[in-house]
Amino acid sequence: MKQRSVSAQLHWEQRTQRPLLGLALVFAVAYAVPIVRPDASADVKWWCEVAEWGVWGAFALDYLIRLFLTERRWEFVRSRWLDLAAVVLPVIQPLRLLRVVATLLLVGQRARMASQIKLTTYVGGAVVGLLMFGSLAVLSVERDAPGGNIDTLDDAVWWSFTTMTTVGYGDHAPTTGLGRVLAVGLMLSGIALLGVVTANIAAWFIARFEKDDAEERRQTAAIAELAEEVRLLRAEVASLKSVEGVPERRR
Amino acid sequence: MKQRSVSAQLHWEQRTQRPLLGLALVFAVAYAVPIVRPDASADVKWWCEVAEWGVWGAFALDYLIRLFLTERRWEFVRSRWLDLAAVVLPVIQPLRLLRVVATLLLVGQRARMASQIKLTTYVGGAVVGLLMFGSLAVLSVERDAPGGNIDTLDDAVWWSFTTMTTVGYGDHAPTTGLGRVLAVGLMLSGIALLGVVTANIAAWFIARFEKDDAEERRQTAAIAELAEEVRLLRAEVASLKSVEGVPERRR
Amino acid sequence: MKQRSVSAQLHWEQRTQRPLLGLALVFAVAYAVPIVRPDASADVKWWCEVAEWGVWGAFALDYLIRLFLTERRWEFVRSRWLDLAAVVLPVIQPLRLLRVVATLLLVGQRARMASQIKLTTYVGGAVVGLLMFGSLAVLSVERDAPGGNIDTLDDAVWWSFTTMTTVGYGDHAPTTGLGRVLAVGLMLSGIALLGVVTANIAAWFIARFEKDDAEERRQTAAIAELAEEVRLLRAEVASLKSVEGVPERRR
Amino acid sequence: MKQRSVSAQLHWEQRTQRPLLGLALVFAVAYAVPIVRPDASADVKWWCEVAEWGVWGAFALDYLIRLFLTERRWEFVRSRWLDLAAVVLPVIQPLRLLRVVATLLLVGQRARMASQIKLTTYVGGAVVGLLMFGSLAVLSVERDAPGGNIDTLDDAVWWSFTTMTTVGYGDHAPTTGLGRVLAVGLMLSGIALLGVVTANIAAWFIARFEKDDAEERRQTAAIAELAEEVRLLRAEVASLKSVEGVPERRR
Repeated sequence: MKQRSVSAQLHWEQRTQRPLLGLALVFAVAYAVPIVRPDASADVKWWCEVAEWGVWGAFALDYLIRLFLTERRWEFVRSRWLDLAAVVLPVIQPLRLLRVVATLLLVGQRARMASQIKLTTYVGGAVVGLLMFGSLAVLSVERDAPGGNIDTLDDAVWWSFTTMTTVGYGDHAPTTGLGRVLAVGLMLSGIALLGVVTANIAAWFIARFEKDDAEERRQTAAIAELAEEVRLLRAEVASLKSVEGVPERRR
Repeated sequence: MKQRSVSAQLHWEQRTQRPLLGLALVFAVAYAVPIVRPDASADVKWWCEVAEWGVWGAFALDYLIRLFLTERRWEFVRSRWLDLAAVVLPVIQPLRLLRVVATLLLVGQRARMASQIKLTTYVGGAVVGLLMFGSLAVLSVERDAPGGNIDTLDDAVWWSFTTMTTVGYGDHAPTTGLGRVLAVGLMLSGIALLGVVTANIAAWFIARFEKDDAEERRQTAAIAELAEEVRLLRAEVASLKSVEGVPERRR
Repeated sequence: MKQRSVSAQLHWEQRTQRPLLGLALVFAVAYAVPIVRPDASADVKWWCEVAEWGVWGAFALDYLIRLFLTERRWEFVRSRWLDLAAVVLPVIQPLRLLRVVATLLLVGQRARMASQIKLTTYVGGAVVGLLMFGSLAVLSVERDAPGGNIDTLDDAVWWSFTTMTTVGYGDHAPTTGLGRVLAVGLMLSGIALLGVVTANIAAWFIARFEKDDAEERRQTAAIAELAEEVRLLRAEVASLKSVEGVPERRR
Repeated sequence: MKQRSVSAQLHWEQRTQRPLLGLALVFAVAYAVPIVRPDASADVKWWCEVAEWGVWGAFALDYLIRLFLTERRWEFVRSRWLDLAAVVLPVIQPLRLLRVVATLLLVGQRARMASQIKLTTYVGGAVVGLLMFGSLAVLSVERDAPGGNIDTLDDAVWWSFTTMTTVGYGDHAPTTGLGRVLAVGLMLSGIALLGVVTANIAAWFIARFEKDDAEERRQTAAIAELAEEVRLLRAEVASLKSVEGVPERRR
């Protein structure tokens, strides 16, 4: 019974994976357009708004269906509390930025769930997503700020890169509180990125280093010698057996 | 005898753990208030002063009690020389900043001692603590400095983040000697943080890489083959035994 | 048949390795001269142009020959799609910068193929190459930009270093879109460099740490004890054999 | 014969280790004084000059003695070519800075040779030395530069820290070619430092991760099972032996 329901949930997650990641792109566009083109017509902006809410709704629905398909509901809620927050919060207090973060969270969750997505792909996608999201969000926040120095999309993207790589020239930097909160997010992601890159290379190096690890060699040698010993022993027992045979035949 | 005393010390450390970490929060508040609200009433400031000294006193007392409970006093003093310094120095020369550092050290020591606190939690806590402490300390130092550019709490926190992540925009930077000493502390902590993050990811990666390590596989193979050999040998001996049996029964 | 062709390809790659890496230096010079000496005579610039195209042609030819020498052509094209792009793109749209990137890519591919080139050498070479290329490219782009602050070769090299090490003072920074694209390339290479350095040290450390790894020790111990056991067993069987011998001689 | 000479060399290196590292401190002081106190009397500066040359001479002499004590002179020269360069170059062209670098190199070589110096100590010492040396060298170079912004020792030390930790605020930065060369040196050391710190933590983490490595466990299990098998086998042979014993005693 539980078996079936679990497989039902997995089945659903696998079937919905692609469409949901597709919706994420729709969301990205719907989020980007009004920021990149502030002079877009009211209709366009309205449609983007609708699209954003639509995508959020799709992920909320997906969450509910998964919750319905699983057996241990309570465990599901506890283990996926972040999803729950991402689904509920925008409703309670529908801030634009919050909905963005929420959708990004939900997308990330689904992407991580997608078994066929390699870790590297996941990290790469996350970095690109964070760069794009960070640039747009900071642009939308800083553009109208008095004394702000991030006014064009170029500057915003450039700033995101200098921040995420922890280079930080300082030729562009957020001045508003919200912009700085976003910047901190990018910095931390940058550190994580740095960590993943380094870790990847390190793991690869170490996997090669391991090969000539002294202890390992000593072990293999020990085993080989041991095997030799057993082989000798076996020969001895064999000879012993033949000796036994003789008296039998003599009588 | 020694057994008992050691367990007594451990018992004390475990019992006092929670309350002492609680006191640390009291200290944090008592330290923050006068800096965040420079226009607070004299009473408030006086009470904060009292609270700070109280927390320091509690940790000093804790040190003495632990020193009394342990058997090998001298070893305890030598191995915990940093605690000793943290306890004694503020008395010799009661500088505000020194007392802060001292208390932070003592809190850190106790937290690290707390067996149930995971390393990640410990690092996370240390980072948050350093950010908060660094921001406040630098703010209190730089605010009154002529030509200083860290005047508000926002700027201080923002600066702490840009420093600890080694981004360093340079839109805000300490100008006084003391402020720079604090900054160096944050930078080094930042490097350590970077190291811990990377190491964490790397360790996780490598743990997965290990799985398909050539040498390992070769070893396992060697052992398996060896086991096979021994199994054969055993069969042979068994057969040998039965052969023995025959003459016995024939007579 | 396939064996032969594969060896033929390998043979070619090994024979052409040195000359092609040599040509890379020619390219470096031919690329640097017009940028470092903008007031060079038209002839010099023309010859540099020729040399650049010549080197690119040599690599293109090398690609075609390798494609001809291999058996599984389709697999070769798929696995080396980056080479193909590097060879074709400059023809479709002969942009100077694109040709530079293309040649760098092709050189990198060949260098990585060179078995006797150690990874460290490869990384070192890549870093030097990127620094040189980045400095020159940014200089050529930023020098003429209005309000640009990278005007001399010194500044360009200095900026490359501050970027690649993610120090990013911000005393010099690209202002044009193309310059920033190049900068991002340097930053990412810098992160990779950081990763390789760290990984190298980490791998070396860990190789030493491994030595006193608890599990390892326990294993070796287990094997030793096991060997001892087998030795005892052998002795026992030997004694058993001698006992057998007695009756034979007695009769 | 060779044995003796090698041990003679080792003996010398161990005996001279401490005094030479002591001389390094003398050098540090002699180098620092004229820079920190530009208004020092001519005598003082002259004595510092003498001390610097003296320390360099001591290391040169040490090199010659070691060269004399070793058997395979040629191998010694080849493997220690850096020492040779450090010894010879300052003579050929006695530049102040070159002599400084040379002495630092020689000190580093000896320190690394010192077996009882732990790696961490070595790295720590190197970092401190580089910071001190970098600060002083940059100060001496930048102080007199027109438009330079590193005029006091405080600024120099502060700049060294921001550079080595790759924070790079940019509030202070070298403007002269020589100053920038020194800066690049500090940056690269900073990256190495970052690497060592991360590697240290990573190695420690991984050493703990290793404990629950699946493959390892499987191996240990395999060995244990194998040992069990041999134990059974031994019992069997033992029983077999007793069976043999019976007829002997029966007759």
